[in-house]
Amino acid sequence: MERVTEICLLGATGSIGTQVLEIIRGKKEYKLTAVAFGRNLELGAKIIEEFRPGFVSVSSETDMKKLQKEFPDLEFGYGEEGLLRAATFSKGTLVNALVGMVGVLPTVKAIKNGMRILLANKETLVVAGDVINRLLKERGVDLIPIDSEHCALFQCLHAGREDVERLIITASGGPFRNLSRKELENVTVEDALKHPNWKMGPKITVDTATMANKGLEVMEAHHLFGFDYDRIEAVLHPESIIHGMVQYKDKSIIAQMALPDMRVPIQYALTYPKRQENIKFKPLDLPRIGTLTFKKMDFERYPVLEMAYRAGKAGGLLPAVFNAANEVAVSLFLQGKIKFLEIEEIISEALTCFDNKKEPTLEEILACDSEVRKRILENYEVEQWK
Amino acid sequence: MERVTEICLLGATGSIGTQVLEIIRGKKEYKLTAVAFGRNLELGAKIIEEFRPGFVSVSSETDMKKLQKEFPDLEFGYGEEGLLRAATFSKGTLVNALVGMVGVLPTVKAIKNGMRILLANKETLVVAGDVINRLLKERGVDLIPIDSEHCALFQCLHAGREDVERLIITASGGPFRNLSRKELENVTVEDALKHPNWKMGPKITVDTATMANKGLEVMEAHHLFGFDYDRIEAVLHPESIIHGMVQYKDKSIIAQMALPDMRVPIQYALTYPKRQENIKFKPLDLPRIGTLTFKKMDFERYPVLEMAYRAGKAGGLLPAVFNAANEVAVSLFLQGKIKFLEIEEIISEALTCFDNKKEPTLEEILACDSEVRKRILENYEVEQWK
Repeated sequence: MERVTEICLLGATGSIGTQVLEIIRGKKEYKLTAVAFGRNLELGAKIIEEFRPGFVSVSSETDMKKLQKEFPDLEFGYGEEGLLRAATFSKGTLVNALVGMVGVLPTVKAIKNGMRILLANKETLVVAGDVINRLLKERGVDLIPIDSEHCALFQCLHAGREDVERLIITASGGPFRNLSRKELENVTVEDALKHPNWKMGPKITVDTATMANKGLEVMEAHHLFGFDYDRIEAVLHPESIIHGMVQYKDKSIIAQMALPDMRVPIQYALTYPKRQENIKFKPLDLPRIGTLTFKKMDFERYPVLEMAYRAGKAGGLLPAVFNAANEVAVSLFLQGKIKFLEIEEIISEALTCFDNKKEPTLEEILACDSEVRKRILENYEVEQWK
Repeated sequence: MERVTEICLLGATGSIGTQVLEIIRGKKEYKLTAVAFGRNLELGAKIIEEFRPGFVSVSSETDMKKLQKEFPDLEFGYGEEGLLRAATFSKGTLVNALVGMVGVLPTVKAIKNGMRILLANKETLVVAGDVINRLLKERGVDLIPIDSEHCALFQCLHAGREDVERLIITASGGPFRNLSRKELENVTVEDALKHPNWKMGPKITVDTATMANKGLEVMEAHHLFGFDYDRIEAVLHPESIIHGMVQYKDKSIIAQMALPDMRVPIQYALTYPKRQENIKFKPLDLPRIGTLTFKKMDFERYPVLEMAYRAGKAGGLLPAVFNAANEVAVSLFLQGKIKFLEIEEIISEALTCFDNKKEPTLEEILACDSEVRKRILENYEVEQWK
């Protein structure tokens, strides 16, 4: 009999979460034991009906009570406590598809419980990579990245972890890649949400436009694979076909390619070390695509990426500062409260304003995160009253 | 202390041979114990002076006597016997960089002697793949391909040999890739020897123009990696940057890339499983290259490739018939005796004229090879007298 993998899924109604459900749908080898989602109760209820998890966590008590009426025989939770319980409701696998800092503590708890971690939440490693790596080692736990670029590097490194010279991840350039800096001044939220290659959530789509996303990915790659920042490179590749490459000492490069479809890395993480056929995945037909193009990364066009490298190299609390500033700024942009180019101004200012600290604890990182968010929002309010 | 690898090098004065020497030059971890070369005595003498091998084999007794005078303290041999002795003069590694059928028996003898085989000679596996694979298994011997495409597949398969769907090798299209079938009618030998990407010997350069080279490579890949012919594909890729790809069940592709420089696969085969830095190898700068293009293989434009697949699928003696017919035809073309398009006519005719036989012995394969050559040359002579 096939072994059943019990899955706790955080972020079930989001872009990654729904694709995780699509992969495990109808497959006896997976059992969804717990889910957490935010405010999308309608989709959440459908997921509960279909997958019948044992435990469900939502954002607020009010939402929880609504769902409890509908599903009186299930266990429910809410807020941070609910999230932590959902993350570790069963042994087996945590799929962390939360967006933002909220994803950090559930990962920590699941590692402590010895669960296998499939990680789509970028913030976990960006802000707390050192803490997480120490924990993973202590508990002998496997962490498998779900991001397409890291999944690519993860696969390439199987061809050999020795004699590696550098890691290369690709960046499509996002929805504004054909606009000049000048033209970026007045872009709208609507424009920012039209990604040319990938269908993703709003926050990450804006992050691809600022290149903050690639910055977070460079930091993630640093922690996942243990390479210095000057050995991790980003290259512009508008077609998003090659996702990651490993260059060896002898200048030979091993690359991973696939059509831009997040279901491929999601399924890979779920079935690893095996791979599975999936009739929904279209084969990559290079002759049909015809042309792959590459351009040197432009740090003047994308100053946020340069800031990310700076924060990453400094280490300590600065990656958390970078991430918090970016999260708040993107949120203000999505609410129509600031202009697109103000995102980078807010990050830049935050990086110079906050003092760094070496080897911070998880508590210090979380405190720093809150402080950065608070101060940026306060500043924003003050600006509004001027 | 570093272990010294003793190397017997066959084809020392050829394109691959001289690049092998370039890689091992000045490195204490390699000792060239024996060399064999053909008629280039001038270059051969230089190699002997520099590397001081213990044994030298040349084509003819006359040439051997000339060199014996110059190097009275060395051992010499000639012809097939000399070649076999050179191949197995020391234990350790055979680098077989011979062009043509003459490369088969030395490989067989070296495998029987338990040597590690670095194989640039395509014919060994094309005509006698089943025999060779049986021998390798019996003796527990490693065979590492030197061809760039096979070296690429070899590297990619290290990322995982399970769940592979198909192998893809690339073809630049050769010197006439921009000509129509009509325009091929009157191309000259001189034109045929101008390869756009690779600097190689004349026979293989003509083979890239007819696509016979890719045909031989498909057969080689079949024997090296154990995949059916319908799971080995060739794709046109004029830039010769991606050399080989492995597509897995989940449609993920692992590819190997490098600038077109045969020293890279040669060094890889020598240092495998390690890799070494080499300041002569230029890094692959994709943004600088800018564009990679791909086109579906065109079997009407390159009918010889279709013939190779047919011969490979039929197996038995047909790959030897294909290879012998091609070798003779290319030789006639290089001598200015036939036109370019007559190469494919000769191969096509040979494939229909000769009877096949299942599971032939090595002796039967060699006899078939001689027979094909003899009959084609006789036919050619008859045509001349008409």
